[in-house]
Amino acid sequence: MMPANANLYAYIHGQFTPLQESFLHISDLSIQRGYGIFDFFKVQGGKPVFLQDYLERFYESARLMELTVPVTSDELTAIITQLITKNKLPQSGIKMLLTGGYSANGYDPGEPNLLLTEQPLVLPEQETIEKGIKIITQEHMREIPRAKTINYSMGIRLINKIKEANASDVLYQQNGVVTEFPRCNFFIVTPDDTIVTPDKDVLLGVTRKNVLQLAARKYKTETRTVTMADIAQAKEAFLTSTTKRILPIVQVDDRMIGNGAPGKVTKELLADLITLEQTQL
Amino acid sequence: MMPANANLYAYIHGQFTPLQESFLHISDLSIQRGYGIFDFFKVQGGKPVFLQDYLERFYESARLMELTVPVTSDELTAIITQLITKNKLPQSGIKMLLTGGYSANGYDPGEPNLLLTEQPLVLPEQETIEKGIKIITQEHMREIPRAKTINYSMGIRLINKIKEANASDVLYQQNGVVTEFPRCNFFIVTPDDTIVTPDKDVLLGVTRKNVLQLAARKYKTETRTVTMADIAQAKEAFLTSTTKRILPIVQVDDRMIGNGAPGKVTKELLADLITLEQTQL
Repeated sequence: MMPANANLYAYIHGQFTPLQESFLHISDLSIQRGYGIFDFFKVQGGKPVFLQDYLERFYESARLMELTVPVTSDELTAIITQLITKNKLPQSGIKMLLTGGYSANGYDPGEPNLLLTEQPLVLPEQETIEKGIKIITQEHMREIPRAKTINYSMGIRLINKIKEANASDVLYQQNGVVTEFPRCNFFIVTPDDTIVTPDKDVLLGVTRKNVLQLAARKYKTETRTVTMADIAQAKEAFLTSTTKRILPIVQVDDRMIGNGAPGKVTKELLADLITLEQTQL
Repeated sequence: MMPANANLYAYIHGQFTPLQESFLHISDLSIQRGYGIFDFFKVQGGKPVFLQDYLERFYESARLMELTVPVTSDELTAIITQLITKNKLPQSGIKMLLTGGYSANGYDPGEPNLLLTEQPLVLPEQETIEKGIKIITQEHMREIPRAKTINYSMGIRLINKIKEANASDVLYQQNGVVTEFPRCNFFIVTPDDTIVTPDKDVLLGVTRKNVLQLAARKYKTETRTVTMADIAQAKEAFLTSTTKRILPIVQVDDRMIGNGAPGKVTKELLADLITLEQTQL
């Protein structure tokens, strides 16, 4: 079972290839050792949104994992433009993926393989935004938090646990200090309307950065340690991500946040974020 | 660059295929999310060594990662036998790899892909065994230690650091408590000739198990917490793995172990292990 996107192209082995015919040899270090990094950005109206931030993080993740991106940032931008032109999707997400390459001995990296794929973008449903979501917490911390590696062993292993709890996502915490979701950042709004997000041991989300800047125009913002006790006192909570933008969180484990409905500040920031994204078009 | 084993077969998509023509679609969850488990055993004289142990661990790793092996243990054994017959390698290692499968959305698992590959086996050189190795330590713990996942993000990222220290491997420790190497277990011999290996947060190595049993015939053995302080007082130290068997460790970071040469107990256990392996032929 492969995704049935018969008309889409991917970029692989230095050329554009139909997605359905895009394969890696099994000696690739992503298959052998889960070794690779990636990044993911939105395309709206044929234009990448906040592309420069995602490119910088992609190269930074590669550097942290001692991988070399085989093309320059300008060359990568040109490839992205061609991919968008070829695929003609009205609203999409583009994934850039860099693996450890074909390994001669199944452990030492080879020449990295660069893949780009583009898929139709699925945004959260309006009902989900209006009701907010429940999340659970899990004792865990990502291994190399500043790098966007392809390692989602813990996140995917928890998919069933999340479903069984009727939750939508899982927030990692260690000794009561919370960090991030497998694919999203975490924010709280304190009783005195300060917008707070963890600073240490998290991926530096592009949406996180934008939300912090938007919030700072109206509120006090803090990037600092956030504990489970902070959550217990929070007025509002939400997550941020490229695809989800801002999703209100109304329950954490068995604890209701605020009055159990999405908060005023959260909704305001989401509206501001959508407005900011429009300026990119 | 693919490994140049022109005549070897792999098992993939339910059939035997030339290794060089063995590919996975890029929607596979190993490529997208580093999600998969594996195991690895030796074949000597056409016979798998300690196969039952490796099969049990393979199915246990799959269970821990919520993956289903698409064949029974008996069916898998039959596939292994056929692979050995086809490849005719005098001495080899067989890798069984189970990925999260082709994912429709790049995150949720599909039907797992089962791959088997067989490669010529490279054992440690006699000189390495006679001189012993230097290792370094690194603050880290594997995420799901009892499962043999394909996640080697940390181990491979440290390859250059190991080389720069003129070391051969890296031992993980957390707050002074040591656990394991990326691909090997760790043992010390205490001043009173007790053979000790960490019990918690380690992969249960098959060679580790065999060495513990062999050691118990002559010495006191303990599986318990091992600290950096224990290493400082150890008379001998060694690592165990399927391919490396037993390798003497003569230096940990800047500290020499014993008199800086492989110890008597270590050499004795290695001889006993080789004898035990012979009984499997």
